[in-house]
Amino acid sequence: MSSQAAPGSQKIKVVVSRHLGPDVMPLLLDRPELDVVVWPEERACDRRWLLENIVGATAALVMLSEKMDQEMFEAAGPGLRVISTMSVGYEHIDLKLAAERKVKIGYTPDVLTEAVADVSVMLAFMASRNVRETAELVARGDWSKTPWAPFVFCGPQLSASWINTTRTAGFIGLGRISKATLARLIPFGFTHCIYTGNPHSKPNLEADAQTAQKYGLQSVRRVGLDELAAESDVVFVLAPGGPETRHIVNESFLRKMKKTAVLVNTARGTLVDSDALAKALREKWIWGAGLDVIEGEPDVRLDHPLLKESRCVILPHIGSATNETRLGMGTLAVNNVLAGIQGKKLPAELDT
Amino acid sequence: MSSQAAPGSQKIKVVVSRHLGPDVMPLLLDRPELDVVVWPEERACDRRWLLENIVGATAALVMLSEKMDQEMFEAAGPGLRVISTMSVGYEHIDLKLAAERKVKIGYTPDVLTEAVADVSVMLAFMASRNVRETAELVARGDWSKTPWAPFVFCGPQLSASWINTTRTAGFIGLGRISKATLARLIPFGFTHCIYTGNPHSKPNLEADAQTAQKYGLQSVRRVGLDELAAESDVVFVLAPGGPETRHIVNESFLRKMKKTAVLVNTARGTLVDSDALAKALREKWIWGAGLDVIEGEPDVRLDHPLLKESRCVILPHIGSATNETRLGMGTLAVNNVLAGIQGKKLPAELDT
Repeated sequence: MSSQAAPGSQKIKVVVSRHLGPDVMPLLLDRPELDVVVWPEERACDRRWLLENIVGATAALVMLSEKMDQEMFEAAGPGLRVISTMSVGYEHIDLKLAAERKVKIGYTPDVLTEAVADVSVMLAFMASRNVRETAELVARGDWSKTPWAPFVFCGPQLSASWINTTRTAGFIGLGRISKATLARLIPFGFTHCIYTGNPHSKPNLEADAQTAQKYGLQSVRRVGLDELAAESDVVFVLAPGGPETRHIVNESFLRKMKKTAVLVNTARGTLVDSDALAKALREKWIWGAGLDVIEGEPDVRLDHPLLKESRCVILPHIGSATNETRLGMGTLAVNNVLAGIQGKKLPAELDT
Repeated sequence: MSSQAAPGSQKIKVVVSRHLGPDVMPLLLDRPELDVVVWPEERACDRRWLLENIVGATAALVMLSEKMDQEMFEAAGPGLRVISTMSVGYEHIDLKLAAERKVKIGYTPDVLTEAVADVSVMLAFMASRNVRETAELVARGDWSKTPWAPFVFCGPQLSASWINTTRTAGFIGLGRISKATLARLIPFGFTHCIYTGNPHSKPNLEADAQTAQKYGLQSVRRVGLDELAAESDVVFVLAPGGPETRHIVNESFLRKMKKTAVLVNTARGTLVDSDALAKALREKWIWGAGLDVIEGEPDVRLDHPLLKESRCVILPHIGSATNETRLGMGTLAVNNVLAGIQGKKLPAELDT
């Protein structure tokens, strides 16, 4: 698809690696000054197609699936001014190279915060309340085989109760989505928040005290990974992907967790060692897990070790999958492209 | 099982329709003054067994599955002082007869409020976020067949977003569990609450204003069923069961709901007409449904119309199924028995 640039015209080329639907695409296609080239298929963009079509582009609007590495930058050529990714993550983009070549990077934070926080809280309760086992039992028509009994399907209560009047939420990374998740947990009786910070940042006791006061928590503390594992009733994995955080949740971490605790990953699959998690669930080191992402997704076959664990709820990366949020992400990604072409500061620009 | 009452002793007979586990049963079995007779099997109590064993009992500790009707009262005889049900519902007990015969009724409110509110919120999001379809897809090993795409699996966002900055929660019945559910929804961006009241109670504008202020809502209003259906982004069914509320959610109600709305039933299956709901989902009058209860449960076979609807999440009545909550319910049910035997006011006594 192309907005029919006349040969020899001075149109500005924008390459788009995925059709963004009838509400978003016109924001680009209706601009006569642009030559918009869009990957024409209903699946992830072929790298070969992108390498061919990024040639001479001023802007590239891409998804998480497109690796923007040296080969891609060189294919684009020196005219590339902006890469706009429709994602909050940017581990697929070589930021150092972008800085060297003065290519601005746009991303889509904030607009997906609420939708991902919704799924994070939902997965925490799905993992703790045996939802996979119980929902599959009903779906198989077997409810009558396991009727009500005083303690059937029971497990530890994640929310506060007459027995556990305090509850601790742990976060690997305390960014925007973590804070929105934390806010949602307060009326469930959560009283404490612990988190691990970016190792490149310094602790900020004042900010922690402010967060505690804002949410009415008894405490908010930055801790090490060992303490996070040991003290949390639920651990939310909400840090960026990439080599620095790969398998941050590994066998050692999982062994330190409470037997009653649940793990939730709505960030990137690479952060959690799937084999270690399967072992932890099989051997009951932890109570359950709720995953929206898995390393190697979407190639998660029937023989994947996590699929066999009935205490593991797995969703196919739908954290931000609502009409409102994806529309917001698409619109912001387009606005980043348009600002980048005009040499303006992007509405959501990464510091590179 | 019996605590070995000697023949001719003046022990007080307590019949218990279900073994309540190693943490609760000793509260009764360890009392030498009691003759505790417990249904010995790992399934719901046979009515015939209960009719035989309730004879001469001073107290009966029963579950929701035991119909406490005239035949049962007459079998017990005039010595029956207290019926203690391990449930918040009491539609299985003939309250009029209990009042006539001066039998106190104990139940277990409050202790299950938080656990059921947790599941109510969880089901609302599971219904809105296509969880049944997406989780089953992953569980089948088919994730790779439906990889990420800008609008795949998307639906209306239940939480507030840049497009919908107000959100309305509707409640059929605004009791303890509804209020705990409402409290949990606030950080998801809910701004309005509407509810239908018990037809025997009067509207209370002052109480509504206080509720609004407590939760920071823009408004809390008692409305009719039609307005509840038409205005809610999510309808929570949280009224008592029984003939007065049977099929309160019927075809007429469902046709008035928003196409983007979801229905959640964590109360009693009888409140929702299953056939009408299946039709509503099939014909897309509403977006989805989350059910913890179904009329006729647990006899929900593979050919049940709701099992065929991929937008219908069904759990096998696990609302209060956490160790802490069931322990609390069992302990309270025992304490109701003990107080009733001693002629004291029960810790949780129904006004009959």
